[in-house]
Amino acid sequence: MASTTHRDPGTGAGAGAGAGGLHINHTTTGADREAENRHHRTPRTAKWYKIHLFRGMVNDLRRRAPYYLSDWTDAWNYRVVPATVYMYFANILPALAFSLDMFTKTDRMYGVNEVLLASVLGAVVFSVLACQPLVIVGVTGPITVFNYTVYDIMEPTGTNYMAFMCWIGLWSLVFHWILAVTNSCNWLRYVTRFPCDIFGFYVAFIYLQKGVQVLQRLGDAAPFYLSVVVALCVFAIAYICGELGGSSLFNHTVRVFLKDYGTPLTVVFFTGFVHFGKLEHIHLEHLEVSKAFFPTPHEDGWIRGWFIHFWDIPVGHVFLAIPFALLLTILFWFDHNVSSLIAQGTEFPLRKPAGFHWDLFLLGLTTGVSGLLGIPFPNGLIPQAPFHTASLCVTKVVTNDDTDVDSTESKGHPSESYQFKPISVVEQRVSNLAQGLLTLGTMTGPLLVVLHLIPQGVLAGLFFIMGYQALAGNGITQKLIFLCKDSRLTNPNHPLNNKALRRSRVWLFVIIELIAFGATFAITQTVAAVGFPVFIFALIPVRAVLLPRWLSKEELAVLDGPTASPFTMESVGGSYGGVEEEEEERTEEGDMGEESSGGGEGGGVLSSGAEGKGKSLRRWP
Amino acid sequence: MASTTHRDPGTGAGAGAGAGGLHINHTTTGADREAENRHHRTPRTAKWYKIHLFRGMVNDLRRRAPYYLSDWTDAWNYRVVPATVYMYFANILPALAFSLDMFTKTDRMYGVNEVLLASVLGAVVFSVLACQPLVIVGVTGPITVFNYTVYDIMEPTGTNYMAFMCWIGLWSLVFHWILAVTNSCNWLRYVTRFPCDIFGFYVAFIYLQKGVQVLQRLGDAAPFYLSVVVALCVFAIAYICGELGGSSLFNHTVRVFLKDYGTPLTVVFFTGFVHFGKLEHIHLEHLEVSKAFFPTPHEDGWIRGWFIHFWDIPVGHVFLAIPFALLLTILFWFDHNVSSLIAQGTEFPLRKPAGFHWDLFLLGLTTGVSGLLGIPFPNGLIPQAPFHTASLCVTKVVTNDDTDVDSTESKGHPSESYQFKPISVVEQRVSNLAQGLLTLGTMTGPLLVVLHLIPQGVLAGLFFIMGYQALAGNGITQKLIFLCKDSRLTNPNHPLNNKALRRSRVWLFVIIELIAFGATFAITQTVAAVGFPVFIFALIPVRAVLLPRWLSKEELAVLDGPTASPFTMESVGGSYGGVEEEEEERTEEGDMGEESSGGGEGGGVLSSGAEGKGKSLRRWP
Repeated sequence: MASTTHRDPGTGAGAGAGAGGLHINHTTTGADREAENRHHRTPRTAKWYKIHLFRGMVNDLRRRAPYYLSDWTDAWNYRVVPATVYMYFANILPALAFSLDMFTKTDRMYGVNEVLLASVLGAVVFSVLACQPLVIVGVTGPITVFNYTVYDIMEPTGTNYMAFMCWIGLWSLVFHWILAVTNSCNWLRYVTRFPCDIFGFYVAFIYLQKGVQVLQRLGDAAPFYLSVVVALCVFAIAYICGELGGSSLFNHTVRVFLKDYGTPLTVVFFTGFVHFGKLEHIHLEHLEVSKAFFPTPHEDGWIRGWFIHFWDIPVGHVFLAIPFALLLTILFWFDHNVSSLIAQGTEFPLRKPAGFHWDLFLLGLTTGVSGLLGIPFPNGLIPQAPFHTASLCVTKVVTNDDTDVDSTESKGHPSESYQFKPISVVEQRVSNLAQGLLTLGTMTGPLLVVLHLIPQGVLAGLFFIMGYQALAGNGITQKLIFLCKDSRLTNPNHPLNNKALRRSRVWLFVIIELIAFGATFAITQTVAAVGFPVFIFALIPVRAVLLPRWLSKEELAVLDGPTASPFTMESVGGSYGGVEEEEEERTEEGDMGEESSGGGEGGGVLSSGAEGKGKSLRRWP
Repeated sequence: MASTTHRDPGTGAGAGAGAGGLHINHTTTGADREAENRHHRTPRTAKWYKIHLFRGMVNDLRRRAPYYLSDWTDAWNYRVVPATVYMYFANILPALAFSLDMFTKTDRMYGVNEVLLASVLGAVVFSVLACQPLVIVGVTGPITVFNYTVYDIMEPTGTNYMAFMCWIGLWSLVFHWILAVTNSCNWLRYVTRFPCDIFGFYVAFIYLQKGVQVLQRLGDAAPFYLSVVVALCVFAIAYICGELGGSSLFNHTVRVFLKDYGTPLTVVFFTGFVHFGKLEHIHLEHLEVSKAFFPTPHEDGWIRGWFIHFWDIPVGHVFLAIPFALLLTILFWFDHNVSSLIAQGTEFPLRKPAGFHWDLFLLGLTTGVSGLLGIPFPNGLIPQAPFHTASLCVTKVVTNDDTDVDSTESKGHPSESYQFKPISVVEQRVSNLAQGLLTLGTMTGPLLVVLHLIPQGVLAGLFFIMGYQALAGNGITQKLIFLCKDSRLTNPNHPLNNKALRRSRVWLFVIIELIAFGATFAITQTVAAVGFPVFIFALIPVRAVLLPRWLSKEELAVLDGPTASPFTMESVGGSYGGVEEEEEERTEEGDMGEESSGGGEGGGVLSSGAEGKGKSLRRWP
């Protein structure tokens, strides 16, 4: 398997965009074949019950352990500083906005301190212990929806809501651990770009909707309109900073600064802005905060302890929590793993292995602990997790004909079209841990006062820019843009300009995606919102069973693809969904626990992964 | 005249960007030399008083007359429709905004009807009679500033303001006619991009400032903030329409539609938008209108007639109007001619000749008539005049390597970078006349009611988008962007990347431009605002006398250039400011009346013009 690391990150076409993919996959699945050979091709039907408990987790640890020390030493790199600052803001600001949402919709059950503590818990546990410390863990939009929907359902029964949530957390811990132990993450190979894009699209719209809702709550007098102005300005300035960061203006340092700190500085600026001039006289709604390090008080001022009295609930309700815990587990299994997959997307040149089973085990732990503490359950954040990896990328400017701008030969060469090419990622644990500790620091008195200064209009603007950024990078958006383009002006080398693929097929695929998104988003607006994880989860069989009936394998290979690179997918037994599919079908059935067995050891893994990586550095929609 | 039109609008480099320019100029000044020869090199000192009165006007008419019939028949082209609609809105909407400004600042001396009538007068006279009917004539920002500054100065004297303005108009008519008769437009050759860019920059900032002022007048309650929201939205949507129009999205028809009708539709949409939902309850300031076809009534309801009693003023004040009339004449000579020059800029492939002297004569006429009617004096509009020409351009999409996208050979060719190349301009009189008649129709009762629906916030947004668009196309902005660009990412073929030109020299030039703009803009904020035309006018000798001391001829040839193409400049005796300068210096002194003398006749003129045209189709900053 896979001789040496002859990487040439520039020459590859899109992932799975040619027959070459067949060969690559051939080498990546070499480990599986090795495993298969060891079993001397025992009959397939006999294998399904051979689960090989703990094998996934053990392999994860075995694979990652050799890199643990370097995860700390590699952090001696400037990229860690902006990544920490950026992640601190990108994690805490939406979390604050979600806390506002939950605060309003659960009658002060959750507030700023609960949300901050959840972020700290996630950050500390995952940065120190996880196999993939790049994944930022915190409070997401879906969990916000989950929390207040459960409140809406259980509040009329008069039960102890916090104890009920605690039981959901505890049951969920059990389910998570069962899933981790039974190597369930090997199913991740079926989580192609298709469900990920739909989920990402859904999360982006949740962001946009929350932004609108924050504004809607402000009435219709001057504060409302001022807040709209502020929200639009925050959006516009943050957008412009992002555009400048990707333009050819200024020099590299300034561009990187704008890209890294543009959004946080915009938030800081407009937080101050509304306190000047005639704006001072307008009473704006600010973020409500409470006493440092204490849970959010009830309306009468009573403050609960940090430990939930989970025994203070009818026994029937303990078991009623099970279906909710199942839904939560489905959500987290999908959401966290997808965050992790996208954070290790094909566009990032990662060199350290992933570990999904171990991280799922940790996620169960944090879910249970969060239940006991009465804080929202943290899990992997989309789009923050991939933003984290992106902000740790060391990039190089190259012209489109692949000339390195820094090299001297390029002088006198027309370089009007250019792009930023990631050459490496600073893979370490410090930025994640540091942003968690910063969040912990934010729970102190003085900083809570600062948080209180943030007007809700700024949070709305932040929701808008986060939603926009998530949409802009989404595969559905990019396919829609491709479809809207003047076909005479598209690059003939664009993967979707494949001759085998009629435009109507691209439309069909995108429309299916939009219908799936629409259904999920629609259910979130009802009291049945708590069931939306089932919708998202159902997309996986839709992709695997229904789509191949409507679209040919070749078409799906172009329209869809594995979420992460073969190198990352290695730890869950290989990819699915590209042209590799055919190759893989030989081994994929009934041997889930085995396929990744030997994957962790030997020089071959890294090299084959790196090779696959090289082929897919340029991401396509 | 004009042997054949062997034009090849695609092959040229930038204007004056090479030694080839020398040769071109050689042919364009051939006519002058012919004239020179006729005089058998009489001593130069003897020539200056030989003004050859009327020669410029007569030549203008002679040159243009052969095209008069085709100016009507050529109008049978689809481009005329969007150009008419676009110009109607682009002319009337800022005019309405300016009318609001004058209405407030002159105590109801001017209102919507006066401004509309001024636009109608300018449009009808210039579309039917002018030598260059592409120039849109209407009420500008500078004349607004002029009018209310005169009001501020004369109001305390208790004089009849309207009669005083009438005398300014009448004196100005005399001065305009003197300038037209004495061939003064031959001085236009010295009006290079340098003063034009500064003036354009100034006008753009006047737009932006007026936008802010419209909003400022709205207090600080809910209506103010709603208006800010509306203004920002109008700006954003109009901006997005413009961007989409220039993108590769959708097909050509949709793009052209967005570009043509985006701004007017945005205005219409937001005018309706503020009347829906909870917005309805917010009392917004709307545009004040009065009785159809009648002058704006005074506060007590008294309505003056359309004919100003110009005798109803002290004799002293009749003569006091002279200095004001001089300032007005300087302003109009510059502003109108520059509008005309820019409307015939080097980027437009025009095929019909210009005529500056005749148009100046007409401008005197409309100025006098406007004085008698008591309406603001109309003159050439920047940026509307060049927008008019641009909207009449028939464009073709070409890739950057000049492959025609429509041709079949381009299939399979990477066409990610592309541009819109103008291949011809529909030069005619109908669009200008039609937009004038539409404006006349707007003075009827029902349409005035519609105008009254426009909230002031929409007008503010319109000011912002007009200001932005004017800034974006301005040479100063483009030089600033060039200077801000990462030098490693600029096109080495960019004219400013000339090896003979150090960056510090570009900075020097831009800083001089910005200082000149700053001084002009600053004076407009004071009661001395009425004198700002002197500042603008003074830029012409600054360019001709001061700049050559600080910058070498070669540097100036790259940094500055003639405003219009050699073809257009032909009618004022050739260009100045490119590398051609040296050639021209031989004839430029003391022979103003003569140089263009033979310009209209002889086979050389048109063909050399067309040749020059080909060299300068692609405009550079």
